[in-house]
Amino acid sequence: MSKTDRRGLFRLGAAFGATAVATSARAATGAPPSDDPWSNSLGAGVDSRPYGRPSRFEKNVIRRYVPWLSPTTDADASFTPLQDHHGIITPNGLFFERYHSGRPSINPKDYRLMISGRVKRPLLLTLDQLMRYPSVSRIHFIECPANGATEWPAAQLNSLQFTHGMIGCAEWTGVRLSTLLDEAGLLPDSRWVLATGSDGAHMDRSLPMVKCLDDCIVAWGQNGEAIRPEQGYPVRLVVPGWQGNVNVKWLRQLQVGTEPWITREETSEYSELLGDGKSLGFTWVMNAKSVITFPCPEKKLTGGPGFYQIHGLAWSGNGRVKEVDISLDGGVNYHRATLDGPVLSRCLTRFTYNWWWDGKPALIQSRVTDETGYVQPTIRQKHKFWGHDPVYENNSIQTWQVLADGTVNNVQLS
Amino acid sequence: MSKTDRRGLFRLGAAFGATAVATSARAATGAPPSDDPWSNSLGAGVDSRPYGRPSRFEKNVIRRYVPWLSPTTDADASFTPLQDHHGIITPNGLFFERYHSGRPSINPKDYRLMISGRVKRPLLLTLDQLMRYPSVSRIHFIECPANGATEWPAAQLNSLQFTHGMIGCAEWTGVRLSTLLDEAGLLPDSRWVLATGSDGAHMDRSLPMVKCLDDCIVAWGQNGEAIRPEQGYPVRLVVPGWQGNVNVKWLRQLQVGTEPWITREETSEYSELLGDGKSLGFTWVMNAKSVITFPCPEKKLTGGPGFYQIHGLAWSGNGRVKEVDISLDGGVNYHRATLDGPVLSRCLTRFTYNWWWDGKPALIQSRVTDETGYVQPTIRQKHKFWGHDPVYENNSIQTWQVLADGTVNNVQLS
Repeated sequence: MSKTDRRGLFRLGAAFGATAVATSARAATGAPPSDDPWSNSLGAGVDSRPYGRPSRFEKNVIRRYVPWLSPTTDADASFTPLQDHHGIITPNGLFFERYHSGRPSINPKDYRLMISGRVKRPLLLTLDQLMRYPSVSRIHFIECPANGATEWPAAQLNSLQFTHGMIGCAEWTGVRLSTLLDEAGLLPDSRWVLATGSDGAHMDRSLPMVKCLDDCIVAWGQNGEAIRPEQGYPVRLVVPGWQGNVNVKWLRQLQVGTEPWITREETSEYSELLGDGKSLGFTWVMNAKSVITFPCPEKKLTGGPGFYQIHGLAWSGNGRVKEVDISLDGGVNYHRATLDGPVLSRCLTRFTYNWWWDGKPALIQSRVTDETGYVQPTIRQKHKFWGHDPVYENNSIQTWQVLADGTVNNVQLS
Repeated sequence: MSKTDRRGLFRLGAAFGATAVATSARAATGAPPSDDPWSNSLGAGVDSRPYGRPSRFEKNVIRRYVPWLSPTTDADASFTPLQDHHGIITPNGLFFERYHSGRPSINPKDYRLMISGRVKRPLLLTLDQLMRYPSVSRIHFIECPANGATEWPAAQLNSLQFTHGMIGCAEWTGVRLSTLLDEAGLLPDSRWVLATGSDGAHMDRSLPMVKCLDDCIVAWGQNGEAIRPEQGYPVRLVVPGWQGNVNVKWLRQLQVGTEPWITREETSEYSELLGDGKSLGFTWVMNAKSVITFPCPEKKLTGGPGFYQIHGLAWSGNGRVKEVDISLDGGVNYHRATLDGPVLSRCLTRFTYNWWWDGKPALIQSRVTDETGYVQPTIRQKHKFWGHDPVYENNSIQTWQVLADGTVNNVQLS
């Protein structure tokens, strides 16, 4: 019988020392904790925050950006604070951002979506008209393909937020793209759709029809409310499991054609120069990836040797997470983690592993396998095909080095 | 073949009239919509909102309270704007509130949770210590048993928000209550737990041990971030599927005993005087309920006869939603709705029904059946047992009256 199968063995009370001792004497009397000021007064009423905000004690839980990553903040990215991320839903206020031309402020009354090109009945829809169509709600992650970009050549940023924070997961509500294309009526040989945004950059990406007719959503809802301005208000495209940039924000046009457009974004921006000098484009799918979110550089082990629950997030652009394995010795041995909560397709999946830390240095890793059998690769395996200097597609296994004092560092194993 | 099975038949483009006509001519040229100001300028950068906010055009999407319902706002309730609720996740900023003594502001450094009474090892835990225990994440609704209270005698409030808005659904992250009770070690005959909050009201409720050892969570996370002050920051109890008030907020003590405590809250507040003069207590489970969220009094049919998607929410405190039926004629005939998205236990479930409205008055209803076979009752069925003047447990079928001009009213069928 393994330690994790036994009940009541965490016994952290004893490990917690002074507090627990104080506890025993005090709690044995049955008396509650002494009354703090908030227990002896009236709090604020229901009219004080018609739209709520986090506690003032949570001011450190914010999106952050890397000042040297981009010359301006309107063509930049901000990162989700995964070190403080509980569960699989990313709160809208903390969902990572990536702008090519800043965050526009769009009046929904002026919003229009055009569906044009090789269709029988072109459409120009207001937001109210768009919302008349049948809608669906699905929980999916969106990840920037540049998530982990700085870590291609070596471990550079000693941070979970900056190495993995260009991802978020939300419930998206909107109309299936297939419904709108049915409504417009595809002409023969309609094999591609160009999605264009209405931000200053006019961000545009070509999408193959097979994906458009599968699971794409023209979305207006995110986690129960209107999509926020930084996520594409009032309407964005959601392309489940594919690169963040094809989930075009502030969507204004869907143009149907016979061939991909090969736009400036698709040549200068979202293609990859490989080690052999060739350029690789249309690498849409975000392959399976995982990361341990506790412990991590921002959240070290503060209590000395003893029980800790390792937890983290896993995902795959190709479907469901099948299993996650944990290594405590840099990938020599692996132990099966527990998948916790809903396991949904193209969605963050939470995993946990109960660890009795002996206080010695350790190299902890998580490795996901998705339902297609794809196994998350090591950075060495990635380097063989991609070389050392790409920007995108770094889905390699992350190693956190745990030191005897509980400090956690980002390292790469050679 | 029913209308709903055929493809491309919504043909709303033609119904939309002027816009669609303008569209056809314009879109046929393949030209995108003319450039609006936000397409010709830089937007705001990633440093401008480290914690995001809704669009300034969404100022009408807020929690609201009923001024005459309570003499003060610190012993009152605010309601989730279900008329603008997309999907099953309620954003934290819009999650309904119910205070007995206002919303306290608690410094997490001063937070303590005491586990005492009939246990071998009483515990007094700091927040950091509590978070050392193994955690789980689960998506569950929380509903106040007074949700719909005003509608017991008659249809009174012409509003979805005020008749059904004391419910929200979120992903809750925390430690299982069973883990903490195992850790403390239950003594023989420990059959009840008293949960007490640290707000000024010291809100407390007795819970039977069988539920405590089943699926209760001592939670610190809500939808990916720290629980907000109005929801119990830093820690609340989550008792899946049971009355909102037993999900004690600002949790400070869990006391183990042999009998229920029968506290003031359980006699003066959360018990129900029945029609026959007897008082009913400990009615914990929120029985199956559903409501159509579009159309509703706040969201009428604005486009004349034609296609509309009816959508709504269903839930059960006893498990999963099995099916939802829609009536368009006040309960004479029913048609099966489609369940959309994840169907999880004790969680909001979204349903949809495609409706070709003929422009005539209609009486629309939804009726849920849960996995136990329980069928949502009519208000007439409820009146037989409960009388006409209770406060709690109104889970009856809601009737919306649709008039020829598209107006929607709250009505009760006699």
